[in-house]
Amino acid sequence: MAELVRFGISMDSGLLERFDSLIERKGYVNRSEAIRDLVRGALVEDQWDRGDEQTVGTVTIVYDHHTRDLADKLTEHQHAHHDAIVSSLHVHLDDHNCLEVVVVRGDTEGVRRLADQMIGTKGVKHGKLVMTTTGEGLS
Amino acid sequence: MAELVRFGISMDSGLLERFDSLIERKGYVNRSEAIRDLVRGALVEDQWDRGDEQTVGTVTIVYDHHTRDLADKLTEHQHAHHDAIVSSLHVHLDDHNCLEVVVVRGDTEGVRRLADQMIGTKGVKHGKLVMTTTGEGLS
Amino acid sequence: MAELVRFGISMDSGLLERFDSLIERKGYVNRSEAIRDLVRGALVEDQWDRGDEQTVGTVTIVYDHHTRDLADKLTEHQHAHHDAIVSSLHVHLDDHNCLEVVVVRGDTEGVRRLADQMIGTKGVKHGKLVMTTTGEGLS
Amino acid sequence: MAELVRFGISMDSGLLERFDSLIERKGYVNRSEAIRDLVRGALVEDQWDRGDEQTVGTVTIVYDHHTRDLADKLTEHQHAHHDAIVSSLHVHLDDHNCLEVVVVRGDTEGVRRLADQMIGTKGVKHGKLVMTTTGEGLS
Repeated sequence: MAELVRFGISMDSGLLERFDSLIERKGYVNRSEAIRDLVRGALVEDQWDRGDEQTVGTVTIVYDHHTRDLADKLTEHQHAHHDAIVSSLHVHLDDHNCLEVVVVRGDTEGVRRLADQMIGTKGVKHGKLVMTTTGEGLS
Repeated sequence: MAELVRFGISMDSGLLERFDSLIERKGYVNRSEAIRDLVRGALVEDQWDRGDEQTVGTVTIVYDHHTRDLADKLTEHQHAHHDAIVSSLHVHLDDHNCLEVVVVRGDTEGVRRLADQMIGTKGVKHGKLVMTTTGEGLS
Repeated sequence: MAELVRFGISMDSGLLERFDSLIERKGYVNRSEAIRDLVRGALVEDQWDRGDEQTVGTVTIVYDHHTRDLADKLTEHQHAHHDAIVSSLHVHLDDHNCLEVVVVRGDTEGVRRLADQMIGTKGVKHGKLVMTTTGEGLS
Repeated sequence: MAELVRFGISMDSGLLERFDSLIERKGYVNRSEAIRDLVRGALVEDQWDRGDEQTVGTVTIVYDHHTRDLADKLTEHQHAHHDAIVSSLHVHLDDHNCLEVVVVRGDTEGVRRLADQMIGTKGVKHGKLVMTTTGEGLS
């Protein structure tokens, strides 16, 4: 069981005032929580830069489901990688446009490649990969 | 009904070679598709920079569902904004960690604010907003 | 004169270990300095998101100085905005390629516009704006 | 000598209209130039993702030159890496704050490491690395 450590930080009063106003606007409950969030963000970024761990990403794509064969192609692609693709969410934006979010698990290289393929599929209007984390070691 | 326009692009042969190799690696079917993707990406980015249209975002968060009240707080928060929050997807990553993707609709300012609130909730380990698009005008 | 404030942060021991290893690799002298950097980074990002202060940016562009009239055009452009353009640095990368860094001062909107114009100039191969800060209030 | 190639792109008229309005606002002279810029941007990004080429970066830092030993430390650091550090530009922002831009050359890993060290130096308030290019192959 991980234990909680407490340590001191020194900061110029002016800087701290600006930070307090930012965390209030962002809705954080206290400084510790806001700083832990910055720390975890830096760690997740570093993990993706170094590419050496199992991780999780989400791919958001927007496409017109009337585009010939596109939905089929995307579904087939996802099934062909069922070991890496955890699940997906589909939203009907209007008569034509769909948004799909696909959760992908694997090493950073593999997640990036799968995301590239989905985003590069003909008919996909916009796509973005969020490189997040399995949450392990980030309590 | 929108019509398809064809126009010419001139490019240095060396630059084109490198681009062709990139689009092959990224899995695009042809240059038109790859260039349309770059164009749509630039338009979506510009839309978010200017903040003047109805749009769609997805918020990816990772958290420990054992954190006291966190899941309840997130659910309540989503219900309180049911007009903006379209739907959400929940994935169990391991005994402790959950990943949730929430689809949010509204003006850019409102989507950003909702994302900040979710990401800033105590116990959320990592969070990222993808600013995407309703797909309108991006065929 | 601003005074130094000291306050406590609580963090899970596992998270702290990973953070300590990151700050060692990044070469920070101690946790306070690393955390202050994260805090200042978040403040600068927020300032640019909200766009409501006088600020500073640097524009890095790479171009071929043999491109007809390009160097002249860039110089003229900089002179026409001498109130906003503080100074610039020019590096000869090889026979053809030059790198130029231009320091721009003004409100966020104006800095962005000037950067867009330089980066969009015909012949500029690559350009990027760094949105930084005047340093005020970030001690 | 590289030759100019011309090829056709097909695009939905609505998408093209929005793109034309964007490139006008950004000040591009024509579509070819705007598209070449998007293509070069994608290539530079890919080069940095893959990390396999000699490249160039600029590091922008803002610091208070009254911070004890900071200017000396930064100068020494730059001299110790004179093979990688091409040159630098110094701007006095106000009584206290300086902005410095340092041009760094090397492989992507080395450029990143040097940037991390400069940005991580105690007293540096804000720092950002721009990953650009030597311009080779990007005509």
